Amino acid sequence: MDKLQSTIRGIEPLNEGAMRQAQARQDNLTKPQGSLGLLEELSVKVAGITGLAQPRIQDKVIVTMAGDHGVATEGVSLFPQEVTAQMVYNFLRGGAGINVLARHVGARVVVVDMGVATELEPHPKLLNKKVAYGTKNMAQGPAMSREEAIQAIEAGIEIVESELRRGMDIVGTGDMGIGNTTPSSAVVAALTGAPVADVTGRGTGIGDEQLAHKVETIERALAVNRPNPADPLDVLAKVGGLEIGGIAGVVLGAAAHHLPVVIDGFISGAGALIAAELAPQVKDYLIAAHLSVELGHRLVLKRLGLTPLLNLNLRLGEGTGAALGIFLVEAAVKVLNEMATFADAGVSEAVG
Amino acid sequence: MDKLQSTIRGIEPLNEGAMRQAQARQDNLTKPQGSLGLLEELSVKVAGITGLAQPRIQDKVIVTMAGDHGVATEGVSLFPQEVTAQMVYNFLRGGAGINVLARHVGARVVVVDMGVATELEPHPKLLNKKVAYGTKNMAQGPAMSREEAIQAIEAGIEIVESELRRGMDIVGTGDMGIGNTTPSSAVVAALTGAPVADVTGRGTGIGDEQLAHKVETIERALAVNRPNPADPLDVLAKVGGLEIGGIAGVVLGAAAHHLPVVIDGFISGAGALIAAELAPQVKDYLIAAHLSVELGHRLVLKRLGLTPLLNLNLRLGEGTGAALGIFLVEAAVKVLNEMATFADAGVSEAVG
Repeated sequence: MDKLQSTIRGIEPLNEGAMRQAQARQDNLTKPQGSLGLLEELSVKVAGITGLAQPRIQDKVIVTMAGDHGVATEGVSLFPQEVTAQMVYNFLRGGAGINVLARHVGARVVVVDMGVATELEPHPKLLNKKVAYGTKNMAQGPAMSREEAIQAIEAGIEIVESELRRGMDIVGTGDMGIGNTTPSSAVVAALTGAPVADVTGRGTGIGDEQLAHKVETIERALAVNRPNPADPLDVLAKVGGLEIGGIAGVVLGAAAHHLPVVIDGFISGAGALIAAELAPQVKDYLIAAHLSVELGHRLVLKRLGLTPLLNLNLRLGEGTGAALGIFLVEAAVKVLNEMATFADAGVSEAVG
Repeated sequence: MDKLQSTIRGIEPLNEGAMRQAQARQDNLTKPQGSLGLLEELSVKVAGITGLAQPRIQDKVIVTMAGDHGVATEGVSLFPQEVTAQMVYNFLRGGAGINVLARHVGARVVVVDMGVATELEPHPKLLNKKVAYGTKNMAQGPAMSREEAIQAIEAGIEIVESELRRGMDIVGTGDMGIGNTTPSSAVVAALTGAPVADVTGRGTGIGDEQLAHKVETIERALAVNRPNPADPLDVLAKVGGLEIGGIAGVVLGAAAHHLPVVIDGFISGAGALIAAELAPQVKDYLIAAHLSVELGHRLVLKRLGLTPLLNLNLRLGEGTGAALGIFLVEAAVKVLNEMATFADAGVSEAVG
């Protein structure tokens, strides 16, 4: 709890001086002012986050956190629970979507066992932060204890600290966990007060009947546990997930260390929402990579005050959208740093 | 005219067999089917365009075509005409937005003088395809002759042919020309029948009064010239631009050579629209990089049957949006080629 509290206290407002300098530079680059739209805004935001008028993005990291969910036994996913562990091995071998897209953008993938249900074989690329062998079935009682929820968040903070030592200029969040849209919807419903049906989607692609059952399962979990919406740790513990807690920790840790955080889709959004409820100032450090197909993601982004960069009908998770988002942030920063000014290039400025 | 006609005749339908094979592979990759959304669709489209079930994208090219516009004397832009040539030199020195973004995505930029108003200093990286020293003022008469319009289009086709010999797996279009949203709006209004005010935007950022004058200038150009909407060469000649014709040629040449073409914003859209009016089958080869801020772009994309990949409030041109679009197409193709299948990775498939 000490680490969580000190991290939250360490999150500062954006550096307005750096933002002003970055905006002034953007306005002198050889293009009509504002003509690179969101790329210009992104570059100014990253200046504010890092405190540097000309930030650099070299080391790019995607943290993909895996966990299992007791509620999977309720039949809320198309896939069996064993797929969580199988996909972790796929990540470690480099064959998953996140590996392909991370390679494409030059990011390294940090794979974390936050709470996979089985014992995973040790691997040099696998970070073991296992809090439990999956959560308990939230439809029958709390998914985890409050202590486990805190442990999950603090594990995320620790990962930021250790990855910073290896070099990290930007971090993207990612998730893997069969059934994990179910606790994510429960977290979002609990924190926002939205009806469960409005924030519950098809996850891996379930049909109408299974969707109705999923909604009913989440409603039961909320009725059984009565999470306190004013207490995000209570919400995470009762109806959340270990990887969702880990993502909240990554978000908090990154903000405390002046790093831009690119959040992926719905599960990452639920984690970011918990972080933002714990520390509202964290929102300034967030960049929303994309708008997921998953119902409820739009509400999460609205609550976080974020405009998604991409809308590609993605719903895979793993950090795949975050990888593409990181590419755009890097593009924005390169525009700021590398474009010639009107004076440099001898180009006439706008008249009047 | 022979080259134009033979190129149009050479544009074939997409290869449906390659598309079926690509879709079958996508459905066996380790992710829920369809969960990579537009990236999956893009990969299948590129398979159909190239005729390869597993296409490769290595050599990426952005063709940035520059031309001047007689109508600039009517005061339709914030910038003086000399900026066209100044920006060409900026492209050649690597200091413009397109240079930064092309480097970021690993594309080479081919800078073409289609019709800059002044004599440009020779440069090893500058392709000289100058058809004229700018167009004439379309508010007073035709912008160019029909022969010049054909020459501009054929220059674009020739560039595709010569760049193919250097290696080119995908091409993006780009433009530079002070005042060139004005002929683009005129072309779009002429070809679609839309009211000029509905397809005329602020270009480099003009205010309300200058915008009203721009609309009136375009209406005058259409009234003076009466371009025949059923004859795209007549439209290009009377109210178009030399770089717009060049872009139409790049589009036609790329399609004839089974290359995916990523079109940039509004000016590129006007060029693509001319190409599609000349050869409707070209539409299948087009990928819309982004939705521009420029009013009228949405209508162009609708007419072309395209969904933009990005919506970043861009309005710079040069091919900047196309560069970002090329990155996404490459991401899509890498997903198709590099992700493990369920069988490869030993991952359990969906139940039922």
